[in-house]
Amino acid sequence: MVTKTPFDTVVAELALVEKYRSLAHLSRNNTPMPSVETLSEIVEMLRQVLFPGYYGESDLTQDNLKYYIGAKLDRAYHLLAEEIKRGQCFSCTITNEAECRHCETTSKEKAAKFIVRLPEVRRLLATDVEAAYEGDPAATSHGETIYCYPSIYAMTNFRIAHELQVLEVPLIPRIITEIAHSKTGIDLHPGAQIGEKFFMDHGTGIVVGGTSIIGKGVKLYQGVTLGAKSFPLDEHGNPIKGVPRHPIVEDNVVIYAGATVLGRITIGHDAMIGGNTWVTQDVAPGAKVLNPK
Amino acid sequence: MVTKTPFDTVVAELALVEKYRSLAHLSRNNTPMPSVETLSEIVEMLRQVLFPGYYGESDLTQDNLKYYIGAKLDRAYHLLAEEIKRGQCFSCTITNEAECRHCETTSKEKAAKFIVRLPEVRRLLATDVEAAYEGDPAATSHGETIYCYPSIYAMTNFRIAHELQVLEVPLIPRIITEIAHSKTGIDLHPGAQIGEKFFMDHGTGIVVGGTSIIGKGVKLYQGVTLGAKSFPLDEHGNPIKGVPRHPIVEDNVVIYAGATVLGRITIGHDAMIGGNTWVTQDVAPGAKVLNPK
Amino acid sequence: MVTKTPFDTVVAELALVEKYRSLAHLSRNNTPMPSVETLSEIVEMLRQVLFPGYYGESDLTQDNLKYYIGAKLDRAYHLLAEEIKRGQCFSCTITNEAECRHCETTSKEKAAKFIVRLPEVRRLLATDVEAAYEGDPAATSHGETIYCYPSIYAMTNFRIAHELQVLEVPLIPRIITEIAHSKTGIDLHPGAQIGEKFFMDHGTGIVVGGTSIIGKGVKLYQGVTLGAKSFPLDEHGNPIKGVPRHPIVEDNVVIYAGATVLGRITIGHDAMIGGNTWVTQDVAPGAKVLNPK
Amino acid sequence: MVTKTPFDTVVAELALVEKYRSLAHLSRNNTPMPSVETLSEIVEMLRQVLFPGYYGESDLTQDNLKYYIGAKLDRAYHLLAEEIKRGQCFSCTITNEAECRHCETTSKEKAAKFIVRLPEVRRLLATDVEAAYEGDPAATSHGETIYCYPSIYAMTNFRIAHELQVLEVPLIPRIITEIAHSKTGIDLHPGAQIGEKFFMDHGTGIVVGGTSIIGKGVKLYQGVTLGAKSFPLDEHGNPIKGVPRHPIVEDNVVIYAGATVLGRITIGHDAMIGGNTWVTQDVAPGAKVLNPK
Amino acid sequence: MVTKTPFDTVVAELALVEKYRSLAHLSRNNTPMPSVETLSEIVEMLRQVLFPGYYGESDLTQDNLKYYIGAKLDRAYHLLAEEIKRGQCFSCTITNEAECRHCETTSKEKAAKFIVRLPEVRRLLATDVEAAYEGDPAATSHGETIYCYPSIYAMTNFRIAHELQVLEVPLIPRIITEIAHSKTGIDLHPGAQIGEKFFMDHGTGIVVGGTSIIGKGVKLYQGVTLGAKSFPLDEHGNPIKGVPRHPIVEDNVVIYAGATVLGRITIGHDAMIGGNTWVTQDVAPGAKVLNPK
Amino acid sequence: MVTKTPFDTVVAELALVEKYRSLAHLSRNNTPMPSVETLSEIVEMLRQVLFPGYYGESDLTQDNLKYYIGAKLDRAYHLLAEEIKRGQCFSCTITNEAECRHCETTSKEKAAKFIVRLPEVRRLLATDVEAAYEGDPAATSHGETIYCYPSIYAMTNFRIAHELQVLEVPLIPRIITEIAHSKTGIDLHPGAQIGEKFFMDHGTGIVVGGTSIIGKGVKLYQGVTLGAKSFPLDEHGNPIKGVPRHPIVEDNVVIYAGATVLGRITIGHDAMIGGNTWVTQDVAPGAKVLNPK
Repeated sequence: MVTKTPFDTVVAELALVEKYRSLAHLSRNNTPMPSVETLSEIVEMLRQVLFPGYYGESDLTQDNLKYYIGAKLDRAYHLLAEEIKRGQCFSCTITNEAECRHCETTSKEKAAKFIVRLPEVRRLLATDVEAAYEGDPAATSHGETIYCYPSIYAMTNFRIAHELQVLEVPLIPRIITEIAHSKTGIDLHPGAQIGEKFFMDHGTGIVVGGTSIIGKGVKLYQGVTLGAKSFPLDEHGNPIKGVPRHPIVEDNVVIYAGATVLGRITIGHDAMIGGNTWVTQDVAPGAKVLNPK
Repeated sequence: MVTKTPFDTVVAELALVEKYRSLAHLSRNNTPMPSVETLSEIVEMLRQVLFPGYYGESDLTQDNLKYYIGAKLDRAYHLLAEEIKRGQCFSCTITNEAECRHCETTSKEKAAKFIVRLPEVRRLLATDVEAAYEGDPAATSHGETIYCYPSIYAMTNFRIAHELQVLEVPLIPRIITEIAHSKTGIDLHPGAQIGEKFFMDHGTGIVVGGTSIIGKGVKLYQGVTLGAKSFPLDEHGNPIKGVPRHPIVEDNVVIYAGATVLGRITIGHDAMIGGNTWVTQDVAPGAKVLNPK
Repeated sequence: MVTKTPFDTVVAELALVEKYRSLAHLSRNNTPMPSVETLSEIVEMLRQVLFPGYYGESDLTQDNLKYYIGAKLDRAYHLLAEEIKRGQCFSCTITNEAECRHCETTSKEKAAKFIVRLPEVRRLLATDVEAAYEGDPAATSHGETIYCYPSIYAMTNFRIAHELQVLEVPLIPRIITEIAHSKTGIDLHPGAQIGEKFFMDHGTGIVVGGTSIIGKGVKLYQGVTLGAKSFPLDEHGNPIKGVPRHPIVEDNVVIYAGATVLGRITIGHDAMIGGNTWVTQDVAPGAKVLNPK
Repeated sequence: MVTKTPFDTVVAELALVEKYRSLAHLSRNNTPMPSVETLSEIVEMLRQVLFPGYYGESDLTQDNLKYYIGAKLDRAYHLLAEEIKRGQCFSCTITNEAECRHCETTSKEKAAKFIVRLPEVRRLLATDVEAAYEGDPAATSHGETIYCYPSIYAMTNFRIAHELQVLEVPLIPRIITEIAHSKTGIDLHPGAQIGEKFFMDHGTGIVVGGTSIIGKGVKLYQGVTLGAKSFPLDEHGNPIKGVPRHPIVEDNVVIYAGATVLGRITIGHDAMIGGNTWVTQDVAPGAKVLNPK
Repeated sequence: MVTKTPFDTVVAELALVEKYRSLAHLSRNNTPMPSVETLSEIVEMLRQVLFPGYYGESDLTQDNLKYYIGAKLDRAYHLLAEEIKRGQCFSCTITNEAECRHCETTSKEKAAKFIVRLPEVRRLLATDVEAAYEGDPAATSHGETIYCYPSIYAMTNFRIAHELQVLEVPLIPRIITEIAHSKTGIDLHPGAQIGEKFFMDHGTGIVVGGTSIIGKGVKLYQGVTLGAKSFPLDEHGNPIKGVPRHPIVEDNVVIYAGATVLGRITIGHDAMIGGNTWVTQDVAPGAKVLNPK
Repeated sequence: MVTKTPFDTVVAELALVEKYRSLAHLSRNNTPMPSVETLSEIVEMLRQVLFPGYYGESDLTQDNLKYYIGAKLDRAYHLLAEEIKRGQCFSCTITNEAECRHCETTSKEKAAKFIVRLPEVRRLLATDVEAAYEGDPAATSHGETIYCYPSIYAMTNFRIAHELQVLEVPLIPRIITEIAHSKTGIDLHPGAQIGEKFFMDHGTGIVVGGTSIIGKGVKLYQGVTLGAKSFPLDEHGNPIKGVPRHPIVEDNVVIYAGATVLGRITIGHDAMIGGNTWVTQDVAPGAKVLNPK
């Protein structure tokens, strides 16, 4: 007879997944989890397409560019369709496998729609690059901001993720912004709406909540939070999901380091919010909010 | 005769390790430094064991799970025993090699004790997942928090590291929490005691000092510090190490973004600390501390 | 006749680089962009040279050290010369290829000058290690700070980058400090001047602007900003680049978590700046600045 | 108007796949080609299962072995099922996608049947190891033959591939034997039937054709060919596929270096075929065939 | 004073490169050695272009193919130009650096000329695939020969290398055929001229010398040598390089396993050379050469 | 109750290592198997030391060479000592762990003795390079033979392995020659004694047995075997290991492709053995052995 070792006992206990059901993910229809690695690869391919020559091959010319862009977009499209499918499967509750095949189709459709949006993503990022160059006296060229600035890195991931969010792709947008969060310390929820010419100086610690609406030409410094003040609860005391609860920040607002702006309030255009401030009420256009000291 | 080049001169100067003795680590008994890479690998294996299906293989079933968990735990055990030995050797001052062999044994014992603690680590993490799901209106499922949230990532590293700290393993716990610090911007000292259902929203910039004691159901926002106010000095003016100097935070406390809580003070249960506040004195249970403005 | 697919249309549009000229980098003289990967490799080699035994080979002895240091420095020299050349090319506006060859020479000269500075870099880092050990009651040995502390990691990158900045190498210093920014959340501009025995506890969110001047024995906590208050504009309303606009922090100043210090002000020696404060005016030597509350 | 470059012309010509239709493989139902890399990985996992401790983890004990074997077999099973499906798809001519789903099922069934055969594969390989040890005076232990001998490497791949061939899996068996062919220079067709205790000394250049039948205890030296003499042609002059056309080699035959044995002839048990000979007719049991010289 | 260790003595002796000058390669103008790794990568890219869908991406369609082919050819062109330059530099004796720049230009020209030859290379390989399918009764499809057969692998490398040889590129062609030699055991000198529909069954041990001329439809079995008989010597007794010294093999010749054919002899069309034969004189068209036995 | 699946049954059966004891290697004292990967790395480091500039860094000068050689030799020494220890442990039958520690010491001693032999290894390889250049009319430079010729690759591995064999290191020498066997198809037993200026043209299929003695200036072509004729058996019918059983080949002998030379015979100096011959008796100095035809 075999005696169980203490090690075997631990293994047996941990293998009892029903004990902590929420911690285990047993696969549906053999669909794997979305791959963070593949999503990183997709985003890097898109970065190469959006900023050719800065990322990827260095000997690009007007002649060969179309081939590289075509090959990378096609690859990104295929990989993305697969990841969208996985994301949908992860969030799905259908148990009928036949119905399931539908996802194969919708994931490809969404990936195709996403690809079509890329020229617009590029147009917006061009304004963000402009904003970075103009907004930082230390920037020596547009190229330097593209290649070195956390703001441009994070906004590229964000603008890609936001397009997927608009297409109602589950999970994937969040993973893409978390990749940037981990690298830059900037936490932009993919649901936020962010206008042209957005710049975040230094960036570490910035948080922008999922129902924020940000106008054009807004500038945030490190450690700024656009957060929720409180959550409306439903009759069972659970937070109601999806309610607008983050600030509206109008055009040309500047918010300095460490300021905390909470709730569905409006910061009027051209306002200035000082550093380390705590703002929970509307701010008039052009106003300056400073620390009491 | 060979003339020395300026390059040779620099090499010779840098090779004189006695000049800056503290900067060089000449090996004892051929024991290498702990490997950050291997420790990352161990933690990833444990993450796969604790959250099966979310991390690692995707086609898990109740049938095959025991094999994967067994193989990973066994591997983690062997690798961890080696890393513990390295950590002990790094921190050791014994010069008698024979005595040294003792470490070979104690490191295996500690690794084995650690493995036995994993079901409890899993139990605690299940409560952290619950807290994340309940605490963030943007969370759409428990699974999303496991897969995407910096809080769960950092807490997994922390709870692993804390068990090793309790077993008095030197250096290794710190490396494990620094891996999470680097990735998430959350700096949890492995010595801290953290109760069930702990959640950190966004997380970037959170600091929890090594003698902190945190109750159940506590929630911290980004940029919160649980720090030391001052260090008691010994008769030579050096800080006395190991003295309790960080806050006690009781059950169900919420601390908002950017608050700084310093010293061995007690934040009473159910208290709420506002954002960007500076707290250096006890707070009564249920109290609200707000910015003066 | 071939009909263009929607996909082809997107490719064609994105391949029109003249549309968003600033987003594309078409190579000059086939010189590639600086490689972030190679620069990381160079910095790791230097870390191995500066902290032998902590990083790199573990079985170092006084006898074999010279070979490893020599081989790594030689490799670092060659790789760095190439990266400096790329950085110069990136920032260059000369269109005459013959003049271009000049860069081949200057980049080697700068790389050689940099190598000669390494013993001084090591001397400074030894004081930073001392500061970390003395400044954190949780530090158990000098070695632990070298191996685990974000402060030492970031300062190593910074002190390397600063030497290159002094040699007027474009772009490269910034990439090197951004590598540390991404890993530690500490954003030190390579142009800053930082004296001996500098320590940053926890570090996440620290920002030190490019014209800051920091004395000896200064200590910063997480989330501290040494920033600019406003930018003098030129006659066209553009920020004038290169003007001193960040603080002067004298010897032995301590600045606590989340403090924001802005503008070309002077914080006198031995002053203490409290957490979450907002400082925009000179502070006298030995003074304490606290939050109004 | 855009002028086509010579480069564009080459691209356009090569992209016309209909021109050389047989050289391009346009995917059916998005099923990729079998992956040589994954098949190598599967075979390595099986090698670890069949020769535990020689390959894979080194700290195996009777206690932990079951976990490793279980985890590797489960992984091998899943990966193999996918590769079998790809192999079937590659060789398939069905164009109705619905019928196609059938393959999903049969590939899993075949992979499962294969797993069940592994104990028998192990039993056979144990006899091959015995043969290698006995047959080479230079072998110092059984372990050395497992770890170093091309014969054991090639036979492991062969015996795995042969089981798949028996299960009528297309393409995959051939890829597995070609992996060994490339590494050892030994070309064993997976269709051959090879008995117990088979040993190939040195091995380079050995060829065993797909309809060969080899008894027990046979030994071949380097450069031996068991080949076909001629191919029966069908009425169109094409070789008829699948006809027995390679030798039958009975028990305990030894064939020395460089011998060429061709056609469906029988080499009787205990015969000895000398080096560099050319044999196209039956050889009596116990006979010796020598070079005329 | 520092005493030299025995280790230091060995290092010093090995570092004296003048002692064995031919064993060390000190770089000219900083041009590195050709990279076997990069050349492998180039050949793999070309294999993907020549056999799309078999190698590289699996979801190719007539629509996206042009992008992949364009991107890979452009990449291959750039990498190859660099490798050609290195090969020229390796073989060059010019010491005037200015003259040296010439190579930069010629290497690009040769790479461009090579690209233009690829459609012809594809045409020839299509005939080789046909030959493999027809020539091996075990082949079940054209695709199987492309994906699995050493003959096609080796011929792809050979036909690429041969084009570069014709362009008088030094060293690189040899490296490319040696890559195939190492993988398949087939040693085809890039200088050989090989006609359409060439097939090598099994392949291991085949040698085709550099001045061989092979017609259409020739088939070789494993172990066949087309070699030189003797080398004409110059007045100093050194072999005269470049003299035709290998066989001419006319159309539709078949040479069986292990045959050795030596010297500038002619094997007439439709001849058959038996296995293990030794042939050093002309063979008439249609003749059969058999082993004396 | 848990029902065992068929899969579980296979796992249980395969995990019963006592059933096929010789196929499993349960570790002694936690010493792992020698690592083929590490041994490959060691050999590559030595190749870089022996042929500087051809392998490894490309920008070597007389000044920096000593550092690279020193660093690589030191690394090779440490890695090799570990591998020797593993090899000894693999082949060892001592069960007393205390005695075991002895191996730690002897493995270092043997590694150190090996390092001291490297200048002699280099001297011999220089003569092999000379032989390759002189012996192949297709060779255009000494450098080409170093960089491209299987003969030099295989001889480097052989001469390294042979030195270890002389030092009575078990297993490791065989692994090193098998690495070359796999890559080149040349199987040289590390026990063979091979004089200066040895050249193997093409090489595939060459076999040199472990008790062969080869003089100076010998040249072998592809497919040549220097093998054993028969094995003397002991009283139990087992081959007696270690008896001289392979040929003695004196100076300046040439053996052409496919010749098989068997037994402890002597091929006199300056003899020539024709291709595809079978030689089992002494050959007089200067004689020519040809195929009967």
